[in-house]
Amino acid sequence: MSDRRTRLFKGLDLAARLNAESRALAAGLKTPPVCLVLADRENAGARAYSDRQAATAAQAGIAMRIAAYAGTPSAIHAQIDAIAADPDIDAAAMLLPLPPGCDPVESALRLGQEKDVDGLHPLSAGRLAAGLPARPPATAMACLLCAQEIFGALRGLDVTIVGASRIVGRPLATLLLDAEATVTLCHVATRDLAAHTRQADLVVSAAGVPGLIGAGHLKAGAAVLDVAVTATPDGLRGDVDLAAVDGHAGLVSHVPDGVGPVTTACLFRNVVEAARARRRPAAQATRTAH
Amino acid sequence: MSDRRTRLFKGLDLAARLNAESRALAAGLKTPPVCLVLADRENAGARAYSDRQAATAAQAGIAMRIAAYAGTPSAIHAQIDAIAADPDIDAAAMLLPLPPGCDPVESALRLGQEKDVDGLHPLSAGRLAAGLPARPPATAMACLLCAQEIFGALRGLDVTIVGASRIVGRPLATLLLDAEATVTLCHVATRDLAAHTRQADLVVSAAGVPGLIGAGHLKAGAAVLDVAVTATPDGLRGDVDLAAVDGHAGLVSHVPDGVGPVTTACLFRNVVEAARARRRPAAQATRTAH
Repeated sequence: MSDRRTRLFKGLDLAARLNAESRALAAGLKTPPVCLVLADRENAGARAYSDRQAATAAQAGIAMRIAAYAGTPSAIHAQIDAIAADPDIDAAAMLLPLPPGCDPVESALRLGQEKDVDGLHPLSAGRLAAGLPARPPATAMACLLCAQEIFGALRGLDVTIVGASRIVGRPLATLLLDAEATVTLCHVATRDLAAHTRQADLVVSAAGVPGLIGAGHLKAGAAVLDVAVTATPDGLRGDVDLAAVDGHAGLVSHVPDGVGPVTTACLFRNVVEAARARRRPAAQATRTAH
Repeated sequence: MSDRRTRLFKGLDLAARLNAESRALAAGLKTPPVCLVLADRENAGARAYSDRQAATAAQAGIAMRIAAYAGTPSAIHAQIDAIAADPDIDAAAMLLPLPPGCDPVESALRLGQEKDVDGLHPLSAGRLAAGLPARPPATAMACLLCAQEIFGALRGLDVTIVGASRIVGRPLATLLLDAEATVTLCHVATRDLAAHTRQADLVVSAAGVPGLIGAGHLKAGAAVLDVAVTATPDGLRGDVDLAAVDGHAGLVSHVPDGVGPVTTACLFRNVVEAARARRRPAAQATRTAH
């Protein structure tokens, strides 16, 4: 360990600012945006995350309800169809993991793009890819905003993402490319992970492998956004081996108070945007329908 | 220059196989798929490309017609609307560059996803991003197929893409990640291009900067797919400085007979797929509508 200090990044202030913006937008609607969060309540991580969302939704001016996934895939499909048809629900977040037999994209198609705030509906993903106004997956958007909070402009920054999922790594790559960063996407089949992460000014790790990122994975002074939250016997753990990188990394995000609260704030922003689009007068909606 | 030989990759055989597959599929339709190619006929590159498409379309069993873009943006919009409404046209390719004042995504939205074979409609891009059956942009798909022709399985391969456009670099990244390659996306704002390309087993260059890729950009034995075709006083040129990399690179694709004919074959495949989807009986179409 060197004399240099590794800064611990917390996203609570950024999240508070985002939630205040959402609350101001939500206040322009006749009634608060209504979001239903579907979660596997038997899963400790999903239960903790959804409870936290419900506890902070009021800060963003949102009425949030939690429901457990119905028991069987066909019952879940019927559940999602009912949410899609319910005129009083503006949006639904379907937390991962989905119960066995359910596919995230299939579920998003059933829900419809209008109420999708997870960014997994093909039209949501496509609007992001096409550079149109979009509601990107919350974790990806949160990583972008945290990176901008840490670095300011991202043009030319070398970013390596560990984990190429459709919900985090890939949409984050799109957002970072839009901000003119250079982006490398690594994953479980990557041969020499450290060679790729050592080139980066910023590493975003979303692998879910505690201790994966050590000092040998980082150039001196690099920043790491640790997006993974893995439940271990020792409590919640990110991907970064904090003891190993202390004094070597320039910055590491806190788990779970780094990217986490910003992710929740980005989900809330998506809910407010979905409600605003849904409740827009028909004439105006037609003009911006695509 | 060393004694080692750099292999020149041509895509003509691969294109012929793809065209034969398309022709077999097209033969299952009552009449050949009809594709209209819109091109700026004043642009030498676009004119050469569209002429070549028209000359080889019959190999894929496709009836292809070329039309010039109408004069003004509003006339072009009307032109695209007419194509969208024409029951006798299965697909339209809108070659870049579009005339000034026209946006590729806006034009694709006007055409509609059903007849989009360029992969630029948000729903086309979104289906690719979501992992659903898609009609990816032809150049990106051609790069994937050429890479598989050269390397076989791509799992774990280090690929660096030069150029992060929505029509080539970004969809190619998605296709390569689906094939479990590690992918780096570079572009004009990248600080140290050579540092990123030197790590790669395969470099795909789509920059449109003749001579950009020299020996210092490649590790010994690396392969380069040169996707750029730039008209110069010395004729068509790719991004690779062939004299500089000869004997150092393991393989370089020919310009324009490397990825080019495969790109045209992938466009034809998209046309056949669009026609098959469009002419599918309504009952069957409903079952696979998303």
